[in-house]
Amino acid sequence: VGGQEIECVINGEYSVACHRDRDQVYLPFSFIHKYFEVYGKITSTDGVDKFEWSHSYSKVYHPKKKYDPRGTFATFENYNVEVRERVKCISGIEGVPVSTQWEPRGFYYPTQIAQFGLAHYSKNVTEPEPRVRIIDDGEKVLENWIVSKDATISRVYDEEMKTKVLKFSTSDHVSSQVWLKVNISQDFVLSLDVWFKPNSSITVVLQNKDKKETVYLHYVTSNQLIYAQEDHIYHGIGTEVKWRRITRDLIIDMQKGWALLDRPKRKSPRNKFRICSVMLRGRGAVCGVRVSSSEHMAQFYAAADWLASGQRARGGWPVLARRHVAPSVPDLKPGWLSAMSQGHAISVLSRAYHRSGRARYLLAAQRALLPLDVPSAHGGVKAMWMDKYVWYEEYPTTPPLFVLNGFIYTLLGLYDLHVIEGENSISLAKKMFDDGMTSLKTLLPLFDTGSGSFYDLRHFTLGVSPNLARWDYHATHVNQLYLLAGLDPDPVLIDTAKRWEGYMQGKRAAHN
Amino acid sequence: VGGQEIECVINGEYSVACHRDRDQVYLPFSFIHKYFEVYGKITSTDGVDKFEWSHSYSKVYHPKKKYDPRGTFATFENYNVEVRERVKCISGIEGVPVSTQWEPRGFYYPTQIAQFGLAHYSKNVTEPEPRVRIIDDGEKVLENWIVSKDATISRVYDEEMKTKVLKFSTSDHVSSQVWLKVNISQDFVLSLDVWFKPNSSITVVLQNKDKKETVYLHYVTSNQLIYAQEDHIYHGIGTEVKWRRITRDLIIDMQKGWALLDRPKRKSPRNKFRICSVMLRGRGAVCGVRVSSSEHMAQFYAAADWLASGQRARGGWPVLARRHVAPSVPDLKPGWLSAMSQGHAISVLSRAYHRSGRARYLLAAQRALLPLDVPSAHGGVKAMWMDKYVWYEEYPTTPPLFVLNGFIYTLLGLYDLHVIEGENSISLAKKMFDDGMTSLKTLLPLFDTGSGSFYDLRHFTLGVSPNLARWDYHATHVNQLYLLAGLDPDPVLIDTAKRWEGYMQGKRAAHN
Ligand SMILES: [Ca+2]
Ligand SMILES: [Ca+2]
Repeated sequence: VGGQEIECVINGEYSVACHRDRDQVYLPFSFIHKYFEVYGKITSTDGVDKFEWSHSYSKVYHPKKKYDPRGTFATFENYNVEVRERVKCISGIEGVPVSTQWEPRGFYYPTQIAQFGLAHYSKNVTEPEPRVRIIDDGEKVLENWIVSKDATISRVYDEEMKTKVLKFSTSDHVSSQVWLKVNISQDFVLSLDVWFKPNSSITVVLQNKDKKETVYLHYVTSNQLIYAQEDHIYHGIGTEVKWRRITRDLIIDMQKGWALLDRPKRKSPRNKFRICSVMLRGRGAVCGVRVSSSEHMAQFYAAADWLASGQRARGGWPVLARRHVAPSVPDLKPGWLSAMSQGHAISVLSRAYHRSGRARYLLAAQRALLPLDVPSAHGGVKAMWMDKYVWYEEYPTTPPLFVLNGFIYTLLGLYDLHVIEGENSISLAKKMFDDGMTSLKTLLPLFDTGSGSFYDLRHFTLGVSPNLARWDYHATHVNQLYLLAGLDPDPVLIDTAKRWEGYMQGKRAAHN
Repeated sequence: VGGQEIECVINGEYSVACHRDRDQVYLPFSFIHKYFEVYGKITSTDGVDKFEWSHSYSKVYHPKKKYDPRGTFATFENYNVEVRERVKCISGIEGVPVSTQWEPRGFYYPTQIAQFGLAHYSKNVTEPEPRVRIIDDGEKVLENWIVSKDATISRVYDEEMKTKVLKFSTSDHVSSQVWLKVNISQDFVLSLDVWFKPNSSITVVLQNKDKKETVYLHYVTSNQLIYAQEDHIYHGIGTEVKWRRITRDLIIDMQKGWALLDRPKRKSPRNKFRICSVMLRGRGAVCGVRVSSSEHMAQFYAAADWLASGQRARGGWPVLARRHVAPSVPDLKPGWLSAMSQGHAISVLSRAYHRSGRARYLLAAQRALLPLDVPSAHGGVKAMWMDKYVWYEEYPTTPPLFVLNGFIYTLLGLYDLHVIEGENSISLAKKMFDDGMTSLKTLLPLFDTGSGSFYDLRHFTLGVSPNLARWDYHATHVNQLYLLAGLDPDPVLIDTAKRWEGYMQGKRAAHN
């Protein structure tokens, strides 16, 4: 194509070099991208190049059926909490993620733990049955463990496990071990029951398929979360001498070790490694050793159990990190509660109760309602809009923020509990859900920018510049609204969902 | 410049032909213009072409000093109400505009009449002294009127006017007239005192400078507003037999006649025409005949007098046109009041009182406050936000709309009256202003879209798509906020004004 150069003066402020072809002026996409924050890339199909322009980078999921608290949670089957950079590792003791989001040393963030549980629960619903390879179950499937010098093994019936287990004992010598040579690729979730005396460990050796790299994953009787040195990555599994089941995604554990060593993140290590051996050291017993493509329910219950055990008497899961929210607002001090944690925890515990029938989960879910009725200024998470409409605050600041996505997640928790309690019951959860839905349907329009959505209403409560939702949060809003529109026929929900989805394709509200 | 064609696929929906030069893709501005509604044109300076990109098409005025109710009103010295297409004409009886905005037959729209008054008041403040050419004042400047067959004139002292006037009488014969040949260009505002018996008229003949076109502007003793036939345009000046002063912008009168004849609007007729004669017919008297470059204060007082006379006992100026506001809202029935009318009227009347000292204007301004305290549902213009914050409604619908610009204009009216009453007085206007400012400072953030402003809050009150303000309304918001920021130091006013001005240059609020 022909044409000349022409200088384009942008709002009288700066210039951009453009092309001109008669009366048409062509502007470089690099400028358009920065000016409007739209996205584009050249793609090639059958040797033909095209430029693909995208107004946003996020995806909306249209629910195929009415939301059911016994099934997937929102769109969480697509979440992968543990790969997030702000997850330091999966605790070897608790089996739940440890966050570094606001505290680099790592802390248990109840929202993240609940999301981990809900993602695994949802994947368990949507994914096909996992492949499970039993390595050694003590009775039917037995491996020939190699016993080195100074080491012993025996197979004995255990009263507690009600099965035969593998007892082992090694000396302090570094080469004294009980081990197994395997060759497992594709699947990497190891699980086993362990009973370890102090200074015992299980080590899994992973090897790159071209054999150039060997990684040693050590699970050691220690309370230290994770540490790493060269090819050795250590996860503490605690020091309690008792039977407990350990479930480890070995690839995740390897990646978290690498992150600690500041090694660059790698693409799809799952395809490049294999498990080549398993070693036991110290003194103890193991049984039920297996490797699976996934162990979603074990990971889900790890979250449910952490929540049930970690709940405080007044129903909350305090966040033990200081949280800076906005320049003009006092920080949330360690120990703050989040309505989103409470709601997500309720969603986890309701499902755990539904699946297990254990009353402990139901009671914890019900107790989790209490902070929703306590004002933020008094240690709870409740804000009021103009003294009229309740809002469950993801961040219980004073003044309040009215974060939208966290509030809706809280509503889902309330709905979950209400349904699991029995839909005909008149429960506190139901009342809190109804009140919250009234608030949502009333205030939702205030989150509409005409071309996107606000993340919160800080512009109203703090008088500062609005906090626009980036596209992934906006997509979350849209997904949440489609879900709620299936539960409540008020047109404001479905109309807003559709309009907001349109904004992601560059549509805008009309101007006068 | 070189390059190839490349197809650009927009959000997977449609394609646009673009240029490609290595990794850079160039998009045609015709697409960008439609997609983002930005503006651009090629300009040429010293033979060099540039492309000028503008995010918006409107202008912000930064006030040079604190707003003073004795001076210009907002930025109204830039307004020219009478040229607007929705102004049918300037009434020959009232001297104020007649609107066709919601009623094609024409009606007196108090907001428009007040704006007409405020624009002329403001122009009187900012423009240099007008050029005035006295044609015939009956005593010092006398013209030699040409008296045709069957016609008579005499110069007699008039008790009421306290000056000598020109009495005239013509026969019914079409050629019987008293007339004057003149040659006036550049200035076109004719004013004179008339005392006309029935079937009398004054005609002004305008001629195109190349003499190809002659237009006859007839001011006739009739109650018909305006009619036109070929080159003859008629304005009714009423049938009352009494002295009254007529002030006519002849160019406006000519254009309104042309509009009635569906002739296309012409560019700057002021430079192309001249006044070539003035004719009297019928029986009556005239005096104080003059042609000026402007008669702003006469036009201002025409508005003030219309407002003072037309006010109803309960303080309102009912709008006698039905108003459709939004699809889901019942129409406003003829007779509705507008807080913007009330506020603008107060601004006119306060200035009229300040300039004239006539108590009539002050009392009318004070009475105009009454509807601001009557809820919209009961015939007034007051809405409440969440039962807490008062809003003076430009369109008093149920549910309310919370139009921003009209509300701020109402606040200016309240401020004007308060200052004119004496700044130390504790008046109803002051209390209403303070309450309104509290509402404004509280709710202003809700009008912020992060990249522009909302015209109203219908998305909240009706649950419909937001009504974005087009750029000229947005610029009005910014101008209004800069003005108010000079009266109230609350940072929300100046911060919002600056942020909103930035939106006009493509700046946006941050996303998270
Ligand atoms: Ca959040
Ligand atoms: Ca308006």
